[in-house]
Amino acid sequence: MKIWGDKRSGNCLKVQYICDYLDIPYTWIELDVMSGKTRQNEFLAINPVGQIPAIQLDDGRTLSQSNAIIRFLARDSDLIPEIAFDEALVNQWLFWEQYSHETSIAVRRFQKAFLGKSDDEIPASLMEKGNAALDLMEGHLKENDYFVAGKLSLADIALFAYTQWAEEGGFTLSDRPAVHKWLERIRNDLEL
Amino acid sequence: MKIWGDKRSGNCLKVQYICDYLDIPYTWIELDVMSGKTRQNEFLAINPVGQIPAIQLDDGRTLSQSNAIIRFLARDSDLIPEIAFDEALVNQWLFWEQYSHETSIAVRRFQKAFLGKSDDEIPASLMEKGNAALDLMEGHLKENDYFVAGKLSLADIALFAYTQWAEEGGFTLSDRPAVHKWLERIRNDLEL
Repeated sequence: MKIWGDKRSGNCLKVQYICDYLDIPYTWIELDVMSGKTRQNEFLAINPVGQIPAIQLDDGRTLSQSNAIIRFLARDSDLIPEIAFDEALVNQWLFWEQYSHETSIAVRRFQKAFLGKSDDEIPASLMEKGNAALDLMEGHLKENDYFVAGKLSLADIALFAYTQWAEEGGFTLSDRPAVHKWLERIRNDLEL
Repeated sequence: MKIWGDKRSGNCLKVQYICDYLDIPYTWIELDVMSGKTRQNEFLAINPVGQIPAIQLDDGRTLSQSNAIIRFLARDSDLIPEIAFDEALVNQWLFWEQYSHETSIAVRRFQKAFLGKSDDEIPASLMEKGNAALDLMEGHLKENDYFVAGKLSLADIALFAYTQWAEEGGFTLSDRPAVHKWLERIRNDLEL
């Protein structure tokens, strides 16, 4: 299997984390997200949406969308709960991550740390939305060690990917002790 | 099962479509998305994210995120392919729908038709992103009657929900004949 990704992208690292954790062999093809190469024809043949990560199986079939990829790779593992409702809760967090978390925390980090924008140049809504996402996580993690069913699942790994870099986006974790402890827990579980 | 939703919201209608198609009984609780009630304590106890749709099972457990809900409700049906890679492709489209399609086509419709904004007041990026999403769909549907495995799946139903109203958002479907035909096909399949 081939993986196209940029190691500075949380979406891409999710795929690496899952492969390493589950001992799935892969060839990593590093693609600089700033280079515009994801929008060129060679890569568009792999993913017409022009986004990384994307994977190609040995038989040529391709798949994109980070959380769809990790769901596929982890399909027979204990990272997806067997109980249907617990699996649904994992999916709930995966969709929330892409809709509310990545679009604020990762996007603000990208604008600040990659595009070098000043706070004044970044829409205030991103800080507000990202803080709401981190507060929701803090509330959940005050009562729970993991996001679903008391154990490590895809939900934790997907949310870990960009939360670990929230401070690069200008967010503070020091006043969110439950998130901070959970980051350490996941880092430890993934042996990072 | 209870469903909290607004019948003008595609995300909410997805849940109704699935229940009606699969003959799953439910009680619909209409909640006006413009009223601010989704942000009040009574509803936040159901979904702390403050978004609809949300469901509550008879035993009290709650679930949110439209695509996580429909995946759960359709888990044992032919709307989710049995072949693992085809299921992954359904997930790929579900995540793409929430990341690239809903955030442009539904958001522009909301700003134009619900908030009454003029074209000048709406960020130009929404039109650009929505057109790219519709073009991607047109390209796929020129070659395929459905999104995955040649038959109706959750991918079609999720994408149908807001595509049917794209013109309310200022997008044109008349120059996208494959999307137009596919809308008719899904409407027919769902007996709408």
